[in-house]
Amino acid sequence: MNQGLFISIEGPEGAGKTTIINLLASLLGDEGFQVVVTREPGGIEIAEQIRGVILNKENTAMDARTEALLYAAARRQHLVEKVRPSLVDGKIILCDRFIDSSLAYQGYARGLGIDEVLSINQFAIEDMMPSLTLYFDLDPEIGLDRISKNSGREVNRLDLENLEFHQRVREGYLLLTERFPERIVKIDSSKEIEQVLQEAREKIGQLITKLRP
Amino acid sequence: MNQGLFISIEGPEGAGKTTIINLLASLLGDEGFQVVVTREPGGIEIAEQIRGVILNKENTAMDARTEALLYAAARRQHLVEKVRPSLVDGKIILCDRFIDSSLAYQGYARGLGIDEVLSINQFAIEDMMPSLTLYFDLDPEIGLDRISKNSGREVNRLDLENLEFHQRVREGYLLLTERFPERIVKIDSSKEIEQVLQEAREKIGQLITKLRP
Repeated sequence: MNQGLFISIEGPEGAGKTTIINLLASLLGDEGFQVVVTREPGGIEIAEQIRGVILNKENTAMDARTEALLYAAARRQHLVEKVRPSLVDGKIILCDRFIDSSLAYQGYARGLGIDEVLSINQFAIEDMMPSLTLYFDLDPEIGLDRISKNSGREVNRLDLENLEFHQRVREGYLLLTERFPERIVKIDSSKEIEQVLQEAREKIGQLITKLRP
Repeated sequence: MNQGLFISIEGPEGAGKTTIINLLASLLGDEGFQVVVTREPGGIEIAEQIRGVILNKENTAMDARTEALLYAAARRQHLVEKVRPSLVDGKIILCDRFIDSSLAYQGYARGLGIDEVLSINQFAIEDMMPSLTLYFDLDPEIGLDRISKNSGREVNRLDLENLEFHQRVREGYLLLTERFPERIVKIDSSKEIEQVLQEAREKIGQLITKLRP
């Protein structure tokens, strides 16, 4: 039934996800594929409302499990309204962050437990797991350094305080690549952008022969 | 740590839950117990916001799984902000509907699967399951008949169309009483209200000796 290809893109801040996604979309588009670039909540009205509850600054009392359930709910709706129809239409979906972000950030780094966060997300996703996940791996210190250079500001005290958290996020991602080796591909994001792009394109390669226009 | 007693009240519409809860609360209060009557979202701001998304009439595209996740999220927040503090304070909490409503209505009657809906709710609840669940059992035809007499209107075509659904809800509840016999007590709600109340009070009896004022 699903004629398209669902690819999720993961990695820490500063790993260059946004740049790579846009370059990949251009590349695949030039080759004649129909590509959809998205990220949750993806402009889906119900998912935006849920996101509004999560991000509401008044909601300081929000429990971590409440938040994880809300992310899963928004994920479900974005999947049903945007990802699934695109898959049915035979498109390639490049989704900036998906289930593995919840597993690495909330499940591992925040300590809710990878298996427990996986369980509620499996309920949300059913059988609509990505066929491929490109994980752009990068030392958080390099990532934070890149961000500071991009924004023209110094890495501040808060960034440094958070370094340990970002290191835990990376540990979480690395655990996930070991756990789901058939789905998640790790790409060294410290290399030059052209090399990273080429590697990402190669990893996608085998999966899209059936979609070749 | 939890010095109080958490009791959930379940049953179909028309089973007299609200009446029984209020009578029980009075009875226990007269005996000197501190009683909290609540129902989700229970005035908890974050849970109210989530409920607002669920009930928003514009949200006709909402998927059943999105809805189940949102209910679990609101349940979590109500539990953390209202039920848990009351338990710590040594109170008796009478909660009108809780996890079994999700299991009977969404898991069984709507067909999402009892185990799957249980799984996301276990994530939401952790170890804070009710010590006792009073399930007021009633034939849906009698329940709908009672509602029509209360509201002074005839049972209409929609009620009748829904009868099959309400019968499935009851089937779901009955499956749950078989599955969780140590937690859920079934009370025949077709009897006179005084008799139903007395039976409910007896079921609570053994659990509150330690709370006796």
